[in-house]
Formats: sequence, structure tokens, C-alpha cells
Amino acid sequence: MENEDNDRQVEELIRTRIRTLPNFPIPGILFRDITPLIGEFTTFQEIVSALARPYNGIAVDFVAGIEARGFIFGTPLALQLKTGFIPIRRTGKLPFPTIATSYTQSYAKSAIELHMDAIQTGQRVIVVDDVLSSGGTAAAAISLLERLGAEVVGAAFVIELTGMSGRAKLNSYAVHTLARF
Amino acid sequence: MENEDNDRQVEELIRTRIRTLPNFPIPGILFRDITPLIGEFTTFQEIVSALARPYNGIAVDFVAGIEARGFIFGTPLALQLKTGFIPIRRTGKLPFPTIATSYTQSYAKSAIELHMDAIQTGQRVIVVDDVLSSGGTAAAAISLLERLGAEVVGAAFVIELTGMSGRAKLNSYAVHTLARF
Repeated sequence: MENEDNDRQVEELIRTRIRTLPNFPIPGILFRDITPLIGEFTTFQEIVSALARPYNGIAVDFVAGIEARGFIFGTPLALQLKTGFIPIRRTGKLPFPTIATSYTQSYAKSAIELHMDAIQTGQRVIVVDDVLSSGGTAAAAISLLERLGAEVVGAAFVIELTGMSGRAKLNSYAVHTLARF
Repeated sequence: MENEDNDRQVEELIRTRIRTLPNFPIPGILFRDITPLIGEFTTFQEIVSALARPYNGIAVDFVAGIEARGFIFGTPLALQLKTGFIPIRRTGKLPFPTIATSYTQSYAKSAIELHMDAIQTGQRVIVVDDVLSSGGTAAAAISLLERLGAEVVGAAFVIELTGMSGRAKLNSYAVHTLARF
């Protein structure tokens, strides 16, 4: 009950603070700008704590964040959960040998990579990004982690765009989002 | 004295853990891979605490991190110092109106942007990135922040490549690095 109250307060905080901008990055897209959520300490900390709440008391080895806004929420989440952080990056950015995958996201084709030695079989990982939209990026990230033998114990997002069916695409996983638009 | 001991321990930790890879991203570059520093909780937390140490008790309004590895260290630093976080990004990534600047970094030309409304005149900012190399990226970031009226109270880096003269380029600023190579 206390957690439900907290969840409602965080959703309200996000809905109040977020900035909505039309036609970015391309015409017709209504972009949710997260910079006001991170530009003020109390709001940022509330969001990180809310991202962490479902995992308190659960064994987690790593938080994996998707470049670049997934780094902004994923690194503080990793430290709050006392885990390591794994960066999932666009092609060509990681210096060690990688595994890679291509996918279609909401408005572009893209590819992401993961260091081959980032995870050992059976390690438990939470995937983090700022926005759950079509779910293409997150599904690609999960597929990379599972190719290395990871057990994906959750996928956490600050914002969920409910019209984009991302949750359906991730329906085999425990998806946790803080505010829905 | 205690702080000096801490600083030596953190430098030793970084020197032990960092992975050095030849010829990335281009032939002739010896790349310092920071993923082992963030992949294990204790090391990552030690580094964030060491980045924060010079600013404990000093008034700071924002930590500004440079895309993308500056986000990895800058966001936990912001939360530890109880400040907001400002992302400085590559061109075309920020959705609100920006100011921009071009510069030459160690091995490429690049351009970065900052939201026009990110800072108000007189607000105190720390700039963070993973590596201080030629100093071109950090100097460009500082110039953007100052165009918005920021007072840059420090520039913090996990690693300093001492052969690249970055410190000289930033000699008007309080530069703080954790490990030198």
C-alpha cells in the first residue's frame, strides 16, 4: 500500500515535470524530454529510488543500460542496488570484442553491441532505458544479454508510451515503468 | 593526509582494473577501456566517491556530463553531491533548442550541444568526463556552459592521459583527475 502510494506520487511527479516537444527527432513524433527530470536533484533521486523499488531484496548481478539515456538512469540504479553496470552501445563504440544485433526502433533502424565478456552464464541482469516505446531496442538488448547466458530478471523504464505496444513485445519479462503516456 | 591516502588507493585501483586496448578507435591509439571500472560495484562506488571528494562542502548547482561515458560517471556524481545533472550531447540528440560548438578532439572533429535553458547565470557547475586527453571536448563543454552564464567550479575526470596536454588547455580551471597514464 505504501509502495502503491509512492508509485502514484512518482508518476505524478514525472507527468508534472516532463517536457513534451512535437516533431522530434522527425515530423510527427511527440518527444518526451527527460532533461527536466534529471536537472533537479530531488526529482532525479525519487525516480532512481522508484526504479530500484521492485528489486530491493532480489538478487541482481548487473544493471545493463542502453546508450545513451539508459546510462543516465542505469548507472545510479546500479549503485543504488549495489551491482555493477554494463553499457549496451551503438555499433563501433565499445573497444573490446562484442556481440551485436540489428533491429527496428520507433522511427529508425539501429544496431547495438555488448562486450563479449560482460556477463557469465546465469548472472542476473536488469535492463534499463528511459522510454519503453515499440520495445525494439529493449528486446534487442535482452537478446544480446541472453546470448551471453544472462538471466534477465527485469526491464525497467522511466516512461511507457502505451500506444506503441512495447509491453506486449516484452511479455516474457517482468516490465516495470514509472509513468505512462 | 587521509584524503591523500584515499587518492593513492583509488589511483592504484584504477591502474589495476583498467583494460588497455591497442588501435581503437583507429590505428595507433592506445585505448583505456573503463568498462572493468564500472562492472563491479565496489570499484564503481569508490571512483564516484573519489570524484566527489574535492567538492564535498562546496556549493555546486549542477554536474554536467559529456556524452556518453561522461553520463556514466556524471549521473552518480550528481546524485552523490545532491545536484541536478545536465547532459552535453553530440549534435542532433537534444530535443529542445540548443547552443552548439565544434572542436577537434584527439582523433576526430566533433560537435556538442547544450539545451539553451539548462543553466541560469551564476549557477555553479562541475564538468565530468571519463578521460582527459587533449582537453578539446572538455574545453568545448566549458565554453558552452559559460555562454549560458555558468560558473565552472571544476572539471573532473577518471583518467588523465598526461602526454596529451589536456591539463594545460584547461589551466584556468580546477582540474581533478583520479589516475594518470
